[in-house]
Amino acid sequence: MMTLYYSPNACSRAAHIALEETGAPYERVRVSLKDGEQHRPEFLAVNPKGKVPALKVDGRVVTECPAVLAFIAASFPEAGLSPANDPFAAADMLAFNLYLASTVHVSFAHDRRAARWADDEAAQAAMRAKVPQNLVEQFGTIEERLGDGRTFVHGDSYSVSDPYLFTFTGWLRERGIADETRFPRVFAHYDRVKARPAVQRILEIEDAG
Amino acid sequence: MMTLYYSPNACSRAAHIALEETGAPYERVRVSLKDGEQHRPEFLAVNPKGKVPALKVDGRVVTECPAVLAFIAASFPEAGLSPANDPFAAADMLAFNLYLASTVHVSFAHDRRAARWADDEAAQAAMRAKVPQNLVEQFGTIEERLGDGRTFVHGDSYSVSDPYLFTFTGWLRERGIADETRFPRVFAHYDRVKARPAVQRILEIEDAG
Ligand SMILES: N[C@@H](CCC(=O)N[C@@H](CS)C(=O)NCC(=O)O)C(=O)O
Ligand SMILES: N[C@@H](CCC(=O)N[C@@H](CS)C(=O)NCC(=O)O)C(=O)O
Repeated sequence: MMTLYYSPNACSRAAHIALEETGAPYERVRVSLKDGEQHRPEFLAVNPKGKVPALKVDGRVVTECPAVLAFIAASFPEAGLSPANDPFAAADMLAFNLYLASTVHVSFAHDRRAARWADDEAAQAAMRAKVPQNLVEQFGTIEERLGDGRTFVHGDSYSVSDPYLFTFTGWLRERGIADETRFPRVFAHYDRVKARPAVQRILEIEDAG
Repeated sequence: MMTLYYSPNACSRAAHIALEETGAPYERVRVSLKDGEQHRPEFLAVNPKGKVPALKVDGRVVTECPAVLAFIAASFPEAGLSPANDPFAAADMLAFNLYLASTVHVSFAHDRRAARWADDEAAQAAMRAKVPQNLVEQFGTIEERLGDGRTFVHGDSYSVSDPYLFTFTGWLRERGIADETRFPRVFAHYDRVKARPAVQRILEIEDAG
């Protein structure tokens, strides 16, 4: 049995959607970041790093969003969530997800979690002030990449990169940093992903109390 | 033909060592970060993000260190640089590399590259001041992980995670943040990796002018 530990509208949303897309049975455990539940002993026993997503599979645990996504894609090949049998395409998918994890997600974290990187409040405010500029530059790179009329991040086929990008595009819109006038392809991609039935189901579950 | 774009003692060292361990032929191109060569048009044509490592393979390019490492391991299975045929072990390797890329590497970057996240000089100084504390906490997690007498990060077998950790442990020592009295297992791992002939060859090449 698989159990996903997630928090509503956290980066774990990507893994939540990917799991739902496979059609496989799984359980979900809500770890409310807002209530600090990631610091509770029950969750630290699952992921000592205190972060979502964490995916427990037969007692073993996978962490780190791109690793969880790659694991889901590899475990359910029939769901077609990653390019099959092409080592270069697989590396390219991983590289895209890595860019989201190590650069885009890190930019967002300098907004609400600036205290990770400086104790001083003025320094935290200076970090928050630069977040929009960094994100606009980084989503500019992604807008370029979506450039050749492609439907999804890696072309015509939906993959785990799509719900991952979708999650961060949602954050960009909610925080009022940019919208479809600035990044038309990125937001058209957002709408396309949002229309999928599996995505609708997860939004409903995560947004319910 | 494969071409690795690297800078001496950058995170690309992990990919440089991994390639050398395969025994496969490759070319190397030095992109000196110290001289700002990552911003030159010739390199931006290879990787528009302006970062090393980048691995060009038959005209296509793989970026992001954990993706480059996974590509090398998958392309040369006979080199045994990743756990074979076990999806969970593969995900665990990827998760470890992701932690290095998205957390440990990001901590280091707040030292020399603090200007990425705040324009203000006092804020940059506040970020630099917190780097040792974050790194000591994060290497504490890694020290734990190396706990059951294991030789390498994932057990008895060497994998691409080993030169990746080796690279960051080297940075920790050079910056005087911690040594073997604080993290005995991490530094014993460092010595074990350093003793490998492929590692010796790469250190010689990168350290030569
Ligand atoms: N590198 C990790 C980062 C995970 C992460 O930062 N998750 C956030 C939610 S978006 C979290 O759990 N934060 C809780 C905290 O920092 O206390 C990954 O990509 O999975
Ligand atoms: N997320 C990327 C980060 C790569 C990165 O930051 N590389 C550094 C060297 S350690 C670099 O090229 N820096 C040049 C710059 O920032 O201008 C990865 O894991 O490969």
